[in-house]
Formats: sequence, structure tokens, C-alpha cells
Amino acid sequence: MRGAVMYAPGDVRVEDRDVPVIVEPTDAVIRVAAACICGSDLWPYRGIEQLNGATPMGHEYVGVVEQVGSEVTTIKAGDFVVGSFFASDNTCEICRAGYQTHCVNRQPVGANGAQSELLRVPLADGTLVATPGQPDANLVPSLLAASDVLGTGWFAAVAAETGPGKTVAVVGDGAVGLLGVLAAHQLGAERIIAMSRHADRQKLALEFGATDIVEERGNAGVAKIKELTHGLGAHSVIEAVGTQESMMQAIRSTRPGGHVGYVGVAHDVSLPGKELFFSGVHLHGGPAPVRRFLPELIDLIWRRAIDPGKVFDLTLPLEDAAEGYRAMDQRTAIKVLLQP
Amino acid sequence: MRGAVMYAPGDVRVEDRDVPVIVEPTDAVIRVAAACICGSDLWPYRGIEQLNGATPMGHEYVGVVEQVGSEVTTIKAGDFVVGSFFASDNTCEICRAGYQTHCVNRQPVGANGAQSELLRVPLADGTLVATPGQPDANLVPSLLAASDVLGTGWFAAVAAETGPGKTVAVVGDGAVGLLGVLAAHQLGAERIIAMSRHADRQKLALEFGATDIVEERGNAGVAKIKELTHGLGAHSVIEAVGTQESMMQAIRSTRPGGHVGYVGVAHDVSLPGKELFFSGVHLHGGPAPVRRFLPELIDLIWRRAIDPGKVFDLTLPLEDAAEGYRAMDQRTAIKVLLQP
Repeated sequence: MRGAVMYAPGDVRVEDRDVPVIVEPTDAVIRVAAACICGSDLWPYRGIEQLNGATPMGHEYVGVVEQVGSEVTTIKAGDFVVGSFFASDNTCEICRAGYQTHCVNRQPVGANGAQSELLRVPLADGTLVATPGQPDANLVPSLLAASDVLGTGWFAAVAAETGPGKTVAVVGDGAVGLLGVLAAHQLGAERIIAMSRHADRQKLALEFGATDIVEERGNAGVAKIKELTHGLGAHSVIEAVGTQESMMQAIRSTRPGGHVGYVGVAHDVSLPGKELFFSGVHLHGGPAPVRRFLPELIDLIWRRAIDPGKVFDLTLPLEDAAEGYRAMDQRTAIKVLLQP
Repeated sequence: MRGAVMYAPGDVRVEDRDVPVIVEPTDAVIRVAAACICGSDLWPYRGIEQLNGATPMGHEYVGVVEQVGSEVTTIKAGDFVVGSFFASDNTCEICRAGYQTHCVNRQPVGANGAQSELLRVPLADGTLVATPGQPDANLVPSLLAASDVLGTGWFAAVAAETGPGKTVAVVGDGAVGLLGVLAAHQLGAERIIAMSRHADRQKLALEFGATDIVEERGNAGVAKIKELTHGLGAHSVIEAVGTQESMMQAIRSTRPGGHVGYVGVAHDVSLPGKELFFSGVHLHGGPAPVRRFLPELIDLIWRRAIDPGKVFDLTLPLEDAAEGYRAMDQRTAIKVLLQP
């Protein structure tokens, strides 16, 4: 079967890989209907994160179950499923508390490379959720979004305690930030300030429910958020970048007692303890427990209440994955969908 | 009137100071019944925090109202009152959200020096809470504790979301940590692990409701907490020290999705973003909004449901404040009460 492999920064190739098989009785193998390229895939692509040799890529996927192991009970061959990037048993104490990405038995699905024709998913019962039936083709991008970027934006909005009456600021205008806007809107936020300086992303933010756009960033961005909130700062801030600047922008844009939900994978971030202490904010985030939200998100998508698939502004055949990486890297695409 | 003034690290003197008067119509002047020395007073005493010249000391106080400004309506001369270390209007949006220490009009009461015979308290209506009557002498220490250490330990327990069914770990065995134990117990925590290697503090922790004592600290302490919690970490961790080691001990002792409530004033703390991200914990803390809790805490003390005054293991006349600082510094006393 064909699959994308990263050999070095800037070097992604689609090549023949071994056909995955059931290894554990709790496994499933799925035929990938759609996969995509994640902002976090760009860290090794840009050489910021070290690669350990040639690495199969991709951790976002939807597809049709080909085969399940003998112990799998909740999904069966032929089901259309959405999964998340960490396999989880969904039964341990941590999972039951809603933190499936920290499951005591978690396994990174991405290690198997989801940008491929077939994918082995461990702990299938705890990881995959079947849709109510075979989806219309135009629902597939949204279901794929649920697998990571929507689930992550949603978690950030929940972690930031967005909701009715709240003013929410969103730092980061990538797919996750934009879907954080969508999530905040769905969760009933009163005012949603998207921080973006790109016209196409601003437009999508407004479609997803943003009420204000702030183009400034860093301290100027913070000042603007303060200006829009009677000097207090936002109640809820979603951080979806993962740099020192974006984290500080998020913390400083939040009022005392407010909530920062941060989901940008932290790179070279160091939080000054004293400033954090005196800020009085709540901080919560990390790798999003997408599995917690999948049933709800699939339902919203199935009912066409939300259309998160709009973040995909470039669709390519899997064979052209390298072009997809280039487009994401150069920010000519927000999010690239790959069709095996 | 007499009051304690710090001239330099290790140099605290009780001397004549100007008698405070009503400056703003929202002020009150109180006759201090009891004040105390705070762990945070030790930072400048030890030369770790810079002093700006001779500094009146103390920010924890109870006393009897001598005089109020023309706009004060909720307290009157003769009332016995408990206040908090930041004066707050208790009406702004931040105060109404329960974050009075971040009030848009806040003023540090400590700037006036509470370790003295008389004290001017700004924003008296929003800062002071009157007790139901004149307290018995043996209630005074507990009411004084409410003014800071109890309120701070209570906030930490609330920020750490302690409660029924929760396992709580407490990092720090000073007065705040010990009262964090008391708070967690009152809030219904199932298991409370006090981290302490001092017999007298362990004893008090057990009296306040600790179910386990862990003597190890740092990584060994974390390992012990994990061992006591099926490898997962505590649901809730109270951090009441403020050093890099104590913060990391708190974060690492918390399970994914769990809550760290941190109230130790951060000194030279820098939190590694990546580790924090992958920890999946909630982080909340800062200067405790004691005012939020005062009515409830005074009620509990008045009904003798709690006895936080036990943390005072040394009572001295105000004139001997210097001896009190020495005792706190050398850890021969947990907490020193000063009687003007």
C-alpha cells in the first residue's frame, strides 16, 4: 500500500509500505477515506523538531473498517469511523475523567502513519467512533476535521470555559484556532475576537462566528484586547500556536480569574512564574482528548449544524502529499486534505 | 503609635510611627487586636526580595473599628472586623467574579503596615467583614488566620478543586499548606496527603485532617504520591511554597486532568512549557482573593467548626516583633501572632 514518509526536513515521499495487519486482538485496520496534514507535522518538516529516521506521517483520519481483532465489540467491518490521534482504552480512570489522550494504555496512532491507504488503529473500541451510516461525500471533510483540529479547537474552547456571556479571544488563525472560533460560537460565547492578519483566515473566522478581528499581535494585540474589554481582558482565551509569544499573548489577554485554553504544542516555551502568579488566570490545555468530544461532534456534523470541513482549502491525492506539505509550510493553504 | 518597620534584611524594629487618619471617605482606621508575620515577609527578611528603604510591615490583621470615612456604610466604629491584604471595592466586575485581590481599584493594605497599633484600611466596605459580635479571646487567633493564611489555603484548595472523592496532596508545610489541609478536609476530600518532614507540622496536619504524611520531596516525593495513587497522581495538589522545586513537585504529583492550586508567591520560577503541555493539568492560583471567602470562614470559626488559629505556635507582644521574625526565619515557629 502507499503511504507518506518524511525522510528529512522538507523531504516527504509517498512510497510503498507494508500492508498493516491486526497485531493485537483489540486492533482494527481501516481503509483511509481521507487524511490530512497537521500544523504539528510542520515542526519536523521545518527542522525544528528532530526526526528519528524515515517516519510514516499523519495522525488524522477517517475511513471504513476493513477488519477488527477478536476482542473488538463496538465497531465492525464496513463501519465508517472517526478516530483520534492517541489510541485510548476509554475505560481507565483517566479516560473516564475525559482525558483519553493521557490514557494509561495510550498509543500514538500516528506512529503507524495515517497519510496512507490503510491504517492499523490500536484499542479500536476505545479510539474509534462509528458514524450513524455511510456519510455523504461532502460530510467527509468535516468528519475528518473532528479527528483532530475540530476536537482540539473544541477542547481549547472548553478548557478556556467559553460559554454564554463570555468574551473569547483566539490567538492563532490556523485550522485549530479557526475551529476554536467555531467551538466558542457553538458553546454560546457572546463575543469572539479572532486574532489574524490574513484576509482568507479572517473571512473564515467570521463565517465560523467571530464578532471581531484583531490584526495586532504581541503586546499591541494584548492592548487591543484590553481596549475591547473595558481594560479587563477577555474571560476566555484560546491559544492555538505554541510559541513563547503566543502563550504570553494569551495569558496577558486574559482577565484575572479568566481562563486560558492552550492547545498549540509548546515549543521552547518557558512561563515566568511570577507573572503567571500575579495574572490570576486559569491555565489548562495540552494534547486534546478528542475522543471525549467525538460522539457530540459527529452528531453536530451529521445534522449539518456545523461545517468544520471548510478549513480544508486544498484537496490533493495522497500521491501529492509533498505538495500539500509545501502549501501548508508556505501558508498558501490553511489545511490540506489528502485522498488515498 | 508603635509599629514594626523593616530596615534591611534581618533588621526589623518596632518604633513610633504616625497615627493613621482617614484620608479617603471610603477608609476606616482600626485598632489592631492581633497581627502576624507572614511567610512572604521572610522574602525581604532573607534578602531575596529587595526592600525600598525602611518599610512598615504586616498585612494580616483583625481589630476594632475606631473611625470610618463618610462614605462607609457596612461597618461602624466598635465593630470587630477581619480584613484581607488587598483592599478591594468588592463591586467591580473582577470582584464580582470572586477575584477581589485583582480588583480594578485594589490597594495593598500592607503598605500601611498591619504590625502596628492602628491601621488605615482603604475601601473599608469592600475589604472588611464584621464578626457577629465581639469575639471571645480564644477566637481571635482563628479570625486572624482567616485574614490571610486560612483564606489563602482555602483558595488553594478551591483552585485545586478539592472535594468529595478526591485525593489531595499538599506541597508545603507552612501555615498556608497546613490550612490547605484543613480546607481540603472541610471541602470533603477523601484522602489528604501532607508533604512534610517536620514532626510538629506533621502532627498539626493530622489534626487538620491529613490522612497520609509523605516525608520525601522533589522527585522522590512525586514518586511517593504516584505510589499512593495507583501510579496516576493526585486529583488535586495544593502548592504553598513558591519555588521552582515546589512548583514542579506539585505539577508532577498531579494526574492528567487534575488541578494544581498554587499560592506560594513565585520566586525565580520558570515553568517548562512542553512539560506543562503534556502534563494535562489545570493550573490556577495567585494572590488569594481572601475577601471572597471571609463571610464563610468567619461563620465556620464563629461556630467553632474549625480552629485554624492552631497554626500560631508563638505569641509575642508587638514590641518583640524582631524575635518573631527570627523564629519564623529559623523555623522554630510555624506562625507568629503579634499583640499590639
